[in-house]
Amino acid sequence: MNKQELMELLKSVASGDTLVEDAALKLKMQPFVEIGDYAKVDFHRGIRQGVPEVIYGAGKTKEHILDISRAMLSNGQKSVLITRLCPEAAAFIKKELPLDYNELSKTGVIGPLPEPDGKGTVVVATGGTSDIPVAEEAAVTAEVLGNSVTRLYDVGVSGIHRLLSHMEDIMSARVIVAVAGMEGALPSVIGGLADCPVIAVPTSVGYGASLGGVAALLSMLNSCASGVSVVNIDNGFGAGYMASMINHLE
Amino acid sequence: MNKQELMELLKSVASGDTLVEDAALKLKMQPFVEIGDYAKVDFHRGIRQGVPEVIYGAGKTKEHILDISRAMLSNGQKSVLITRLCPEAAAFIKKELPLDYNELSKTGVIGPLPEPDGKGTVVVATGGTSDIPVAEEAAVTAEVLGNSVTRLYDVGVSGIHRLLSHMEDIMSARVIVAVAGMEGALPSVIGGLADCPVIAVPTSVGYGASLGGVAALLSMLNSCASGVSVVNIDNGFGAGYMASMINHLE
Amino acid sequence: MNKQELMELLKSVASGDTLVEDAALKLKMQPFVEIGDYAKVDFHRGIRQGVPEVIYGAGKTKEHILDISRAMLSNGQKSVLITRLCPEAAAFIKKELPLDYNELSKTGVIGPLPEPDGKGTVVVATGGTSDIPVAEEAAVTAEVLGNSVTRLYDVGVSGIHRLLSHMEDIMSARVIVAVAGMEGALPSVIGGLADCPVIAVPTSVGYGASLGGVAALLSMLNSCASGVSVVNIDNGFGAGYMASMINHLE
Amino acid sequence: MNKQELMELLKSVASGDTLVEDAALKLKMQPFVEIGDYAKVDFHRGIRQGVPEVIYGAGKTKEHILDISRAMLSNGQKSVLITRLCPEAAAFIKKELPLDYNELSKTGVIGPLPEPDGKGTVVVATGGTSDIPVAEEAAVTAEVLGNSVTRLYDVGVSGIHRLLSHMEDIMSARVIVAVAGMEGALPSVIGGLADCPVIAVPTSVGYGASLGGVAALLSMLNSCASGVSVVNIDNGFGAGYMASMINHLE
Amino acid sequence: MNKQELMELLKSVASGDTLVEDAALKLKMQPFVEIGDYAKVDFHRGIRQGVPEVIYGAGKTKEHILDISRAMLSNGQKSVLITRLCPEAAAFIKKELPLDYNELSKTGVIGPLPEPDGKGTVVVATGGTSDIPVAEEAAVTAEVLGNSVTRLYDVGVSGIHRLLSHMEDIMSARVIVAVAGMEGALPSVIGGLADCPVIAVPTSVGYGASLGGVAALLSMLNSCASGVSVVNIDNGFGAGYMASMINHLE
Amino acid sequence: MNKQELMELLKSVASGDTLVEDAALKLKMQPFVEIGDYAKVDFHRGIRQGVPEVIYGAGKTKEHILDISRAMLSNGQKSVLITRLCPEAAAFIKKELPLDYNELSKTGVIGPLPEPDGKGTVVVATGGTSDIPVAEEAAVTAEVLGNSVTRLYDVGVSGIHRLLSHMEDIMSARVIVAVAGMEGALPSVIGGLADCPVIAVPTSVGYGASLGGVAALLSMLNSCASGVSVVNIDNGFGAGYMASMINHLE
Amino acid sequence: MNKQELMELLKSVASGDTLVEDAALKLKMQPFVEIGDYAKVDFHRGIRQGVPEVIYGAGKTKEHILDISRAMLSNGQKSVLITRLCPEAAAFIKKELPLDYNELSKTGVIGPLPEPDGKGTVVVATGGTSDIPVAEEAAVTAEVLGNSVTRLYDVGVSGIHRLLSHMEDIMSARVIVAVAGMEGALPSVIGGLADCPVIAVPTSVGYGASLGGVAALLSMLNSCASGVSVVNIDNGFGAGYMASMINHLE
Amino acid sequence: MNKQELMELLKSVASGDTLVEDAALKLKMQPFVEIGDYAKVDFHRGIRQGVPEVIYGAGKTKEHILDISRAMLSNGQKSVLITRLCPEAAAFIKKELPLDYNELSKTGVIGPLPEPDGKGTVVVATGGTSDIPVAEEAAVTAEVLGNSVTRLYDVGVSGIHRLLSHMEDIMSARVIVAVAGMEGALPSVIGGLADCPVIAVPTSVGYGASLGGVAALLSMLNSCASGVSVVNIDNGFGAGYMASMINHLE
Repeated sequence: MNKQELMELLKSVASGDTLVEDAALKLKMQPFVEIGDYAKVDFHRGIRQGVPEVIYGAGKTKEHILDISRAMLSNGQKSVLITRLCPEAAAFIKKELPLDYNELSKTGVIGPLPEPDGKGTVVVATGGTSDIPVAEEAAVTAEVLGNSVTRLYDVGVSGIHRLLSHMEDIMSARVIVAVAGMEGALPSVIGGLADCPVIAVPTSVGYGASLGGVAALLSMLNSCASGVSVVNIDNGFGAGYMASMINHLE
Repeated sequence: MNKQELMELLKSVASGDTLVEDAALKLKMQPFVEIGDYAKVDFHRGIRQGVPEVIYGAGKTKEHILDISRAMLSNGQKSVLITRLCPEAAAFIKKELPLDYNELSKTGVIGPLPEPDGKGTVVVATGGTSDIPVAEEAAVTAEVLGNSVTRLYDVGVSGIHRLLSHMEDIMSARVIVAVAGMEGALPSVIGGLADCPVIAVPTSVGYGASLGGVAALLSMLNSCASGVSVVNIDNGFGAGYMASMINHLE
Repeated sequence: MNKQELMELLKSVASGDTLVEDAALKLKMQPFVEIGDYAKVDFHRGIRQGVPEVIYGAGKTKEHILDISRAMLSNGQKSVLITRLCPEAAAFIKKELPLDYNELSKTGVIGPLPEPDGKGTVVVATGGTSDIPVAEEAAVTAEVLGNSVTRLYDVGVSGIHRLLSHMEDIMSARVIVAVAGMEGALPSVIGGLADCPVIAVPTSVGYGASLGGVAALLSMLNSCASGVSVVNIDNGFGAGYMASMINHLE
Repeated sequence: MNKQELMELLKSVASGDTLVEDAALKLKMQPFVEIGDYAKVDFHRGIRQGVPEVIYGAGKTKEHILDISRAMLSNGQKSVLITRLCPEAAAFIKKELPLDYNELSKTGVIGPLPEPDGKGTVVVATGGTSDIPVAEEAAVTAEVLGNSVTRLYDVGVSGIHRLLSHMEDIMSARVIVAVAGMEGALPSVIGGLADCPVIAVPTSVGYGASLGGVAALLSMLNSCASGVSVVNIDNGFGAGYMASMINHLE
Repeated sequence: MNKQELMELLKSVASGDTLVEDAALKLKMQPFVEIGDYAKVDFHRGIRQGVPEVIYGAGKTKEHILDISRAMLSNGQKSVLITRLCPEAAAFIKKELPLDYNELSKTGVIGPLPEPDGKGTVVVATGGTSDIPVAEEAAVTAEVLGNSVTRLYDVGVSGIHRLLSHMEDIMSARVIVAVAGMEGALPSVIGGLADCPVIAVPTSVGYGASLGGVAALLSMLNSCASGVSVVNIDNGFGAGYMASMINHLE
Repeated sequence: MNKQELMELLKSVASGDTLVEDAALKLKMQPFVEIGDYAKVDFHRGIRQGVPEVIYGAGKTKEHILDISRAMLSNGQKSVLITRLCPEAAAFIKKELPLDYNELSKTGVIGPLPEPDGKGTVVVATGGTSDIPVAEEAAVTAEVLGNSVTRLYDVGVSGIHRLLSHMEDIMSARVIVAVAGMEGALPSVIGGLADCPVIAVPTSVGYGASLGGVAALLSMLNSCASGVSVVNIDNGFGAGYMASMINHLE
Repeated sequence: MNKQELMELLKSVASGDTLVEDAALKLKMQPFVEIGDYAKVDFHRGIRQGVPEVIYGAGKTKEHILDISRAMLSNGQKSVLITRLCPEAAAFIKKELPLDYNELSKTGVIGPLPEPDGKGTVVVATGGTSDIPVAEEAAVTAEVLGNSVTRLYDVGVSGIHRLLSHMEDIMSARVIVAVAGMEGALPSVIGGLADCPVIAVPTSVGYGASLGGVAALLSMLNSCASGVSVVNIDNGFGAGYMASMINHLE
Repeated sequence: MNKQELMELLKSVASGDTLVEDAALKLKMQPFVEIGDYAKVDFHRGIRQGVPEVIYGAGKTKEHILDISRAMLSNGQKSVLITRLCPEAAAFIKKELPLDYNELSKTGVIGPLPEPDGKGTVVVATGGTSDIPVAEEAAVTAEVLGNSVTRLYDVGVSGIHRLLSHMEDIMSARVIVAVAGMEGALPSVIGGLADCPVIAVPTSVGYGASLGGVAALLSMLNSCASGVSVVNIDNGFGAGYMASMINHLE
């Protein structure tokens, strides 16, 4: 469905010729258009929900990222989030578009951040300082998708009082993203303290028997706390997206 | 905190001597009592939320399960859910307590099911018929915790039209539990179709290179769909609990 | 068997002194000659079938690749396919021989492409844009071996409608190569839709729990669709060769 | 689509109201009906192709297998293949239906074998005698699906002359299924000798470092012979099905 | 060195002909005698240290265990500890010798427990109730080797307050054995709270991604707390022995 | 607890208003302060025990390491140990602070080494020369924490006499750190010879089936010698810390 | 080659019509005959070398084992070795043929043991008593193949003096089979002491991180001693065969 | 034992004061001297056997390699073999000593090659051209240790006739080193053809599911041919050493 077809569909809704439900279904069913010959871009989310579009930057050339960004903006997107964006590509895009680049999390945002419209607060916690880049990817993703985020960094389980000193934040969260490498125990402890869903993110921080994050991943999958689910190693974006989805449930 | 202390705390709240917030914090902070010398039971959830308590039956003797069940009921619980309950233990308990046993999912419920008080519907879907026992554990857990559940079984991705014929259920769910063994692709496809959070449950169904469910687990962790998170292999209870938690968010 | 011996064998067939069957057997049984001291080259395929020879470029010096190419051409080969050819070696060879180099798939072709003589169409599909290099290796291999190829890129299962919009291509294929990394679910879905054999190629695209393509590999081996078999991770050449072999079956 | 609807569709084709192409598409798109509440059975293959239906017996109760078999037969199927059928279930079904049970391969066939209508011969070869059960599953599957099968058992690579003494069978095959456990080298050697596609089946035969068939699986995936693809460990059915599909290509 | 030689050596020490240091070295250097033809028994530890000998019961016949026990007792041992002793073998030995059998930990003790002569207290803690058998093996081992043991069971990290309510025990321990399955986080949390060495014991408790205890093992090896080292999965004996060795350091 | 609060607490102890025990508990319970926004530093150990603080240098910028070092020194620390410190960061810090850098072990020490106050000697042994960097990390850590260290390098089990020629060192140690890659057998042999606890450290030395140190790790976990426990691959610091903790037990 | 053809070949040699070298080559090239339809038996070894034939009993029915044994004996074999022979099958065969069954190693020998004709002594050593069954399989195999065997059992590396007390045996061996589970260090220590080839056999003895013998296997593959090579886990037969082959080298 | 002591020992033998056997034992028992503080060099082999010493170059600085080489030469060694020697270190040493460097196998030899004194021929075979570097390490090692070597390269099992055309070499070998990556089937096929011991060397050649040589390693460990044992991945030196040891057995 191209833009013109979209306009016609919406006019048809406005005039009563098409039911709202039918239009919504149609939008869900035909969600992409092709840009050049290297990508099919999915516009329906932004149009329907008013949230920014996302580009996964890894493995894409800087020219492709720029092209896709421009196509999104010209289709009416107000903001674009780019994850796994290397500094070189960021510098290249910055010359052409108003990019706000975060070197720590390797994320870039084009356009204004939306007003937070989630129902509560997303807490993003990490076990150590080395986990912060992944946590920031989650936090920036959640912010770009319209969430208010509280960061609790370096509250790992080997110094449990650091975590307990933030009980109020944990108790008042609507959803928590718990990021940890090495033994990956943070989500279990937080899951036992909190009443809300916990999204666990293993990180590849560590060496030797951490096996590139597999140790933390296994630990989190075996969490004895209820209300914990897990995303891929280093997948801050996935955790932030899932947290936002939960936080926007009516 | 034993029962008497609990009563005193509540009276103190009633008389205004203790603030509601302080009492709530206290309840969260001291959540267990000891039953015999083999278990510390956690009562605060039921007291605070009115939902049934849960006993993980695997590795417990039938006598212990009976004792814990009785302790829970005598502490005011209306219903008790027992997971991983073998038929022999079920038969033993049934003689003493009004147990409703589901042999397929190996779950037992003592007491009445609560009225569904979740905000929407929990959809539980499976790839094949062999995944149904795990799915039933998730479904029964969600029902016992107060959710309305829709079952979509045997809608695996190798016959994609079976899934597409249930688009309305998928579109109207508030949270979806997607259960699959073998290649574990169901959550990815559902995640791409749905707007709501998807909890993926790998099962140990399959043989050879399924590696006891590890193939499905890895597949789900690598899902290219956003809004998907994963629990342990065969962990139907964990998925049902997580889904209920999300479905009860205000 | 050197060229002269080959000529004598063929004359002997022509004169009736050797039966065609015996000559064919002899050709199959002695299929190589030595070039320098570093390789035994297999000529019988090209001579018998009229298709191009193939050089696996990885781990060979550019001088060796050039030598082998020249030996093949001087033995009567019309075209030579070189896979895993790095840009530097390609530049080196291009100075000496008419090489057509595809930087995306790292393949080079010396000499003209043959006319497609396969019985039907080979469809090459990918889950995402990052899988395209491996898919191109498969597609170029199939083309060099005399097949007509249809490319369906970026039709991954998390946006199932992208795939369904190409049902006609899938239904009319004689053999399909399905290339995917991450959760590797594409072959299962295609296998459920198509009537023809599906060759699944896992790619090393992804991070963390993708384990360098092992997640996708396991997923494909466990496909619940019938008519799917699998080649090594990133083995586009192997898939293209297998597809061509199937497509040329009388 | 139930049987009546199918009849109406076919009448509509007969009367010219529906184009053949449209009907074919419709049949492919709605390929299942529900039997009881435990299975969705896929009829379109048999109706379209005239070949027997297949039931995967593992994990199904003997009553369910009987019910599904009857439903298939009453829908017009002439033959039904049941794989992974344990002797107890076989004995149970035999009382009700004319089952031909093969205890070695754990397969059962209800109804007559079809006349072979494949284009050539399917060769099924094994490395050792312990691989025969898996090979028989492949061979019976191919026979039930209308193929002429040649068995070459116990021709493993550690006694290469056993294999070479069957060169004529290998040279004249249209597709070969190569079954081996332990070091899994058979498909590589056969792939180097044959001109046709080779489907490799690793078996779980062996002990210690065979890792339940993973050693053979890895060996086959790394085959240096072209024209070899692999199915799951012990998946004789999948190999037989794939071989039949290739052997029936026009 | 047989008993007579030992006597002579000791007399020689007594008479001043052999220095104490030389005798000690000699005892360490020749530490075994052969019993029957199936075992070499190591007596020097008991003789030098006055502590009981240990028999690893797994894989030994009940007759062999009895023979070795008798040989030890007749060599002057006051007590013998048998680990991994199945109930059948225990019943068999009990008829002949005064065995005290603990069915939970599968340990048996012949002879009196020694008076605790360790320098402090050994704390043995578990994450859940399912870890208790392994913990009991550690506790009984430590007791038999002369240690005062404090048990803290079911104090897992998903209910952190259960652990914090035992801070005094943790603070006053001289060495702690922390036993946990599933996510294996207990040693990390205890290691962060305690000032003394922590011996971590992963257990094979759990299912699916616990991989038979490997998840807990990896978690413990990656502990971000200092002062934690790890023994094999389910190796309660090894942990109890190591703890005793540390607790007896002068 | 910041520095001022610490002073007040100590004055309160001095005046008798606070019991020593209460103050000690308080110090243990609130062990960190925040430095900038990137790290929570744990001061209580140094204050309480008089030993140096430790910074894990990997993944920290040289500026952060310098800041943390300065904060530690200005809080009264006499010495600071930095592990995993790359030469570039060492050179940077050396310009500002009196750093003693050991390029072999990648450790740096700021300030004087403390007088050894451990109860005995820590022996650090290696199997080969390639294991020395990890062993040096352990040895330097132990020295900085106040231990007298004896180094026994290149005494691997394939030349057992090299080890036996150092029996006196082994017999007189209070705790032994045994460092080995490849087959990782050193701790087993030492564990059988020594009377004291052995901390085993696998190293990533080796190639092929050493799997980055996993072979040595597994070997050590399966040690048939009693009194051996294991830390993570290449974790010289952890072993040195554990050894020091044991060596300082009263 | 059947028996008659063999006789004719031998007569032809006797008459001088066939050269000995040609006959030997012919025997090597056609080494099997078919027995029934379930096995191809390889006679050439026995005929050429005068040594007993071997049957791998695992996975064969007792009837098949009996048939193959009889065929071998009727072809002139004096002795037959059967490995992995379960007690039930042994009892069955014993009724028909003079079988000497060793329950420990699960080996059976029909016919007389040959006179040892190896050049030296084969030493078979084990780390512990649990490794003895595998060691006995190696020892019996070597004896049946004509070797003089010295057994050194329970000489594991955690009590190094047990091994050193047998230095003379080790020094005078022509080839050594070193059998060990758990940490698998025995071959490394023996390899460092001996001058002759060492065949290492990992066993599946152990639990937890022994991973069914994989830990010992990896340890042995990484042996830092030269002159050590490895066979599969629990493969006593393979080690005995290899040792015999080396011991018979002229 | 230093050189002077050695001389005295030998004089003592000459004069009859020391028995030859006692001297030999003494030499075996004290086999090393220390060079600098970084290595214990083992001289006894060369002195006793007249063969060159070996230095493992990986992980050693070029200065250390030079020092050890000089020490060996000044102790009377005629030749020194250095393995895993990088080109830079080779160039450095060449300036000082007469090094013969082989860039393909990364081996260097100082001094003359010994006359072959092995009993027969060592055959070194490879599956492909990429395996040649590892094979050359084995071949050069065997040559330096006094063996006559026949090279059979690129005779992999996917073109079985390449191997069969060298049957005479295989039949006349005293020991064979079979080197292969990918599916690692070469040793199985050779083991089935040859009468002599086969040392299998897996290589890390390949990609994807070759898992850095683990696939080939597992394949070789599971070889169904008797008389095959295995060394570590890429361990050409170990195979050459083992082959030489076997080839020199009297």
